[in-house]
Amino acid sequence: MKRVAVLGATGLVGQRFVQLLANHPWFELALVMASERGAGKTYAEAVTWVLEKPLPKQAFELTLYPINVDLLVKEKVDIVFTALPPDVAKELEPQLAKRGIIVVSNASPMRLEPDIPLLNPEVNADHIDAVEVQRRNRGWSGAVVKVPNCTTAIATLSLKPLADEFGIGRVVIATMQALSGAGLTGVPSMLILDNLIPYIEGEEEKVENESRKILGFFNGNRIEFNNSISVTASCHRVMVLEGHTEAIFVELKTRATVDEVVKVMEEFRGNKIKGMGLPTAPEKPIVIRREVDRPQPRLDRLEGNGMSVVIGRVREDKTLNGVKYIALGHNTIRGAAGTGVLIAELLVKKGYV
Amino acid sequence: MKRVAVLGATGLVGQRFVQLLANHPWFELALVMASERGAGKTYAEAVTWVLEKPLPKQAFELTLYPINVDLLVKEKVDIVFTALPPDVAKELEPQLAKRGIIVVSNASPMRLEPDIPLLNPEVNADHIDAVEVQRRNRGWSGAVVKVPNCTTAIATLSLKPLADEFGIGRVVIATMQALSGAGLTGVPSMLILDNLIPYIEGEEEKVENESRKILGFFNGNRIEFNNSISVTASCHRVMVLEGHTEAIFVELKTRATVDEVVKVMEEFRGNKIKGMGLPTAPEKPIVIRREVDRPQPRLDRLEGNGMSVVIGRVREDKTLNGVKYIALGHNTIRGAAGTGVLIAELLVKKGYV
Amino acid sequence: MKRVAVLGATGLVGQRFVQLLANHPWFELALVMASERGAGKTYAEAVTWVLEKPLPKQAFELTLYPINVDLLVKEKVDIVFTALPPDVAKELEPQLAKRGIIVVSNASPMRLEPDIPLLNPEVNADHIDAVEVQRRNRGWSGAVVKVPNCTTAIATLSLKPLADEFGIGRVVIATMQALSGAGLTGVPSMLILDNLIPYIEGEEEKVENESRKILGFFNGNRIEFNNSISVTASCHRVMVLEGHTEAIFVELKTRATVDEVVKVMEEFRGNKIKGMGLPTAPEKPIVIRREVDRPQPRLDRLEGNGMSVVIGRVREDKTLNGVKYIALGHNTIRGAAGTGVLIAELLVKKGYV
Amino acid sequence: MKRVAVLGATGLVGQRFVQLLANHPWFELALVMASERGAGKTYAEAVTWVLEKPLPKQAFELTLYPINVDLLVKEKVDIVFTALPPDVAKELEPQLAKRGIIVVSNASPMRLEPDIPLLNPEVNADHIDAVEVQRRNRGWSGAVVKVPNCTTAIATLSLKPLADEFGIGRVVIATMQALSGAGLTGVPSMLILDNLIPYIEGEEEKVENESRKILGFFNGNRIEFNNSISVTASCHRVMVLEGHTEAIFVELKTRATVDEVVKVMEEFRGNKIKGMGLPTAPEKPIVIRREVDRPQPRLDRLEGNGMSVVIGRVREDKTLNGVKYIALGHNTIRGAAGTGVLIAELLVKKGYV
Repeated sequence: MKRVAVLGATGLVGQRFVQLLANHPWFELALVMASERGAGKTYAEAVTWVLEKPLPKQAFELTLYPINVDLLVKEKVDIVFTALPPDVAKELEPQLAKRGIIVVSNASPMRLEPDIPLLNPEVNADHIDAVEVQRRNRGWSGAVVKVPNCTTAIATLSLKPLADEFGIGRVVIATMQALSGAGLTGVPSMLILDNLIPYIEGEEEKVENESRKILGFFNGNRIEFNNSISVTASCHRVMVLEGHTEAIFVELKTRATVDEVVKVMEEFRGNKIKGMGLPTAPEKPIVIRREVDRPQPRLDRLEGNGMSVVIGRVREDKTLNGVKYIALGHNTIRGAAGTGVLIAELLVKKGYV
Repeated sequence: MKRVAVLGATGLVGQRFVQLLANHPWFELALVMASERGAGKTYAEAVTWVLEKPLPKQAFELTLYPINVDLLVKEKVDIVFTALPPDVAKELEPQLAKRGIIVVSNASPMRLEPDIPLLNPEVNADHIDAVEVQRRNRGWSGAVVKVPNCTTAIATLSLKPLADEFGIGRVVIATMQALSGAGLTGVPSMLILDNLIPYIEGEEEKVENESRKILGFFNGNRIEFNNSISVTASCHRVMVLEGHTEAIFVELKTRATVDEVVKVMEEFRGNKIKGMGLPTAPEKPIVIRREVDRPQPRLDRLEGNGMSVVIGRVREDKTLNGVKYIALGHNTIRGAAGTGVLIAELLVKKGYV
Repeated sequence: MKRVAVLGATGLVGQRFVQLLANHPWFELALVMASERGAGKTYAEAVTWVLEKPLPKQAFELTLYPINVDLLVKEKVDIVFTALPPDVAKELEPQLAKRGIIVVSNASPMRLEPDIPLLNPEVNADHIDAVEVQRRNRGWSGAVVKVPNCTTAIATLSLKPLADEFGIGRVVIATMQALSGAGLTGVPSMLILDNLIPYIEGEEEKVENESRKILGFFNGNRIEFNNSISVTASCHRVMVLEGHTEAIFVELKTRATVDEVVKVMEEFRGNKIKGMGLPTAPEKPIVIRREVDRPQPRLDRLEGNGMSVVIGRVREDKTLNGVKYIALGHNTIRGAAGTGVLIAELLVKKGYV
Repeated sequence: MKRVAVLGATGLVGQRFVQLLANHPWFELALVMASERGAGKTYAEAVTWVLEKPLPKQAFELTLYPINVDLLVKEKVDIVFTALPPDVAKELEPQLAKRGIIVVSNASPMRLEPDIPLLNPEVNADHIDAVEVQRRNRGWSGAVVKVPNCTTAIATLSLKPLADEFGIGRVVIATMQALSGAGLTGVPSMLILDNLIPYIEGEEEKVENESRKILGFFNGNRIEFNNSISVTASCHRVMVLEGHTEAIFVELKTRATVDEVVKVMEEFRGNKIKGMGLPTAPEKPIVIRREVDRPQPRLDRLEGNGMSVVIGRVREDKTLNGVKYIALGHNTIRGAAGTGVLIAELLVKKGYV
């Protein structure tokens, strides 16, 4: 059992980390930390738990500590999962890596740097070896590995089999994103009821850039962006608790019928991690729904325990010479904590922890 | 004063027609009809009025009749506004036109026929002269003129100044459409709360086809589609009462900066009807918002009394070599009854009534 | 294993019955029936499954039959769970009872008749013996046992320990009821978004009358209403998927402190069925929350697998000389299918099946 | 024209004050102030305007000042409307009164003091003369007059005709309150979607105490509470933008039929201010709806420009020996800014300004 900690444990992504780690077969949830007033209380007292299942008993009595690097080292924590604001993460994560800790980070800083793996494991598990470069470059004994932006994690999983099989070029993504993406208090109800907000700060740039890195290549020295792909995004917040829905339009380099596209997606098993026995890996990274009106966030977001991307309405797209479809993923599981835990499992399996 | 009637008067679009016609300076609301059980009651008794302002007093005491062509003729109705189901409209509207009545129709049948004007007045008022062709072809003394699909009306208004000034090619449209588009009882709350439905029957085809007709050309004999434009749409229902929001990505044939695009949109006055003094024409068909998070449906849908399209977030789009932006319009006003009334005003002005 | 069937299996309560019965240790779900067009399809094809967990595999391939008494008899079904409209239930249920079938019914007809047990098992399990009277009176070899109205089931569970310990008199109940109570398509989204509906047909009368029967007495011959209690209700529909919230004000016949009231509620174990080993009985029929703002429907409705009533905010009430509190229960589990299954378990245990 | 200022002008109640005062026939909106970062900007720049109608032009260019007593005095402001947090109001309002300014306050401190009028004008306009006592007692040349709590303003308006005509005793009130009552950012969407919150801090005590003061008596020296009335409240937040709905159960001292009760309510014209010509006074303080499912907040909240209380579902109540009914009022108009402006009009009419 590896000893793990969650930093930013009371927020929504932090809660998901706690939920996924409390009963994990490989990990022992040793410490929870947050920057908040709650420090000193038990986790059960400090958190406003809003997930669909009750707070796991294993986490009830954990003391919530303020963020403290020395304590993490002293407590021999192997892996730290971070769900911290960008400015805090930016400063803290390199310190942790320097002290020998493996950081699996949900925060955006450093995501685009060439020696920092930005992992969506079924898509680019092989980028993980950039950890060696990173250690060499930065003199770290630990490491920093990044979880992609939520929208990007969902989109790239759906694009991967198409890129492999047919080649892809232009990609247009319009999103309808869940409230949970903005955190517990991010979106006031007075501003979103009978409404939507057609803007999420920094999101479109993340989707456009991170997609090309995730679908890019590790050349042994650095991770190269895939510049044959061009992504444009428009991101919008809607009245949904959990589950990002994305309308994706893709140019295919090789002509393919809708049936061929569906087949390739449906048979995708995430070869890069297939057969490794990672506990959090879903059996089917992509689940196809054939009903005319699916996927829908409330009905489909927990598919594959929230780790599968659900795809429906695959249609020919004559404008882009390709296909268009709807992709849905659970933003705080597949798009955050779940992928984080899957990355950690991969790190263990690969011997980096 | 022209005598007018509303058919399908108790539905949501019918309610908007009644609201807009009850105090109209040129029209007298003479008759309201519906196919329902309500027939025989007063309009106030029969309708489940849900608009944001109270039912106008002028409509209170109108008797709700069952649909009856003879009665419309006998009562010397000049213009009939229809908000009927497609199958009813398909059969009824030609009968009315034959009997000398001008039909302004919100129903989809016949929208794509080459002698039927599909009018978004600021965009293609000149197509109205196809009425003469239609009368010749079909032996009608009345006429049938169509209101575009709601999403299409909003999109084409925003595209027109770009098409005129820069030329446009590929267009990608992803929508977040209001519940009112499905009528009073169309979307059960159990199916949409904490959810969205990524499908609206027939909508994408309407957007893709009608756009090219509205942005097309009347050659004296027939209305030709604009085939230099290629539109692809993905249409989705969200938890908003009124107001369709559209993320639009457009290829521009001539390179233009964001500022140039905004300027052209902001200065658009709908030249085809400018200066005609049509009471329902908004001063600014397009209103630009410069805040980073606008337009929003609840806050902006009543701009220009619901007749303006509100545009925001105009950004460069490198993927499509053009721009992307958010367009918002009131689906039952600009996208239905309001445009219907504006069409009727144009018909009067042009001497067709 | 007893063979059971669900009638009205595609509606919301029907779905809950199927969910609870598919893996039940004592029951085998042998047949599903509905009056709908779906008949002939598999259950998976016919149902619009909207529950929070996926459709159980055991139910996937069941054929959905139209309602058919002969088939139920031929298939040797022991217990039929009905989730039928009142008019259908009224006619059908006596026929089934006559043919030797035990009917556990969620429909309202016959609920107030003196030889028909209206069971909320933890409260009045002893009324079950009215089945013998009923068989005698009506010449039935089967039986009809009724599940209470949803709001009433929740309220009476909370009132029972107070009635036993302190005596209760006047009771005022104001409800905020979930959309699911009106069925899948009962409440159109256009009528409830940014709104509430302060009326539910027949609901207030049900609460006022059924409460006095459930808290009444079986005298060996008939179930007598408890006329020392007087209940008044005001019932309202709000934008919540599942979970009825009730503000309850109760006159206590014996003076009691808030702490005493909380203690009595918290220690309530539903003595009438305690120790019987009924699989669906929650460990704690009443769960007390001490936070100032709980219970809340989304966070608490699945407490005790949806079978517990969650109570919070117990306060002194000087106006009624008693207490006021908030009670929350899952309307389609505790208030319908779950209590139905619990009743069936009791019937088996007591030897009536 | 009296010169007026709004303090706390950017919040939701502040926005309503600005909306109502911008075109007021007796008042000139001279100054807007807030404690926020926005100070120094124009009002249009500083405010997140969310009301259903656009920001009035008269308010666009007003400079938003930080709160400043000297400036208010220097600018010869006659009346200050305050929509401030309790702690700020508590300290500031007496200072303003001392400096000769009339303060019409929406804040809770001092509401229960015997020389401070707590005015719901149609109910207790005569309490206004406590201003003289207050000036005597406190040495003020200005005055402080309080707007009641929102829920209480709505409830007492509905109770007044019953108290006058039949006498009332016990009153039970259960509320379903709008989000706007908690301010622009008070209720996070993640905590209320598919949910409700059965608690509003301090609200129940306000309703219980303020009701008895408003329905009490000014004896020339002090305002006496009406102790023949006993009110108990349970207050809940639901997913509605504006409009508080209240289920009210009332004991009547004299027996009355439902028809008699409806008649008395419907004929109520708020005699205490009738005929004074106050511009904000609604023609009918109480509007009766006879449909079985009304009033509803979205459809009825703007009745009488938001100043009428809409009542429906008047039913006999045998438990309390009286009646029960649903009352709906606009919480930021009737329950806050609208009543504030009406109070100011009364103060002018009575010569206190």
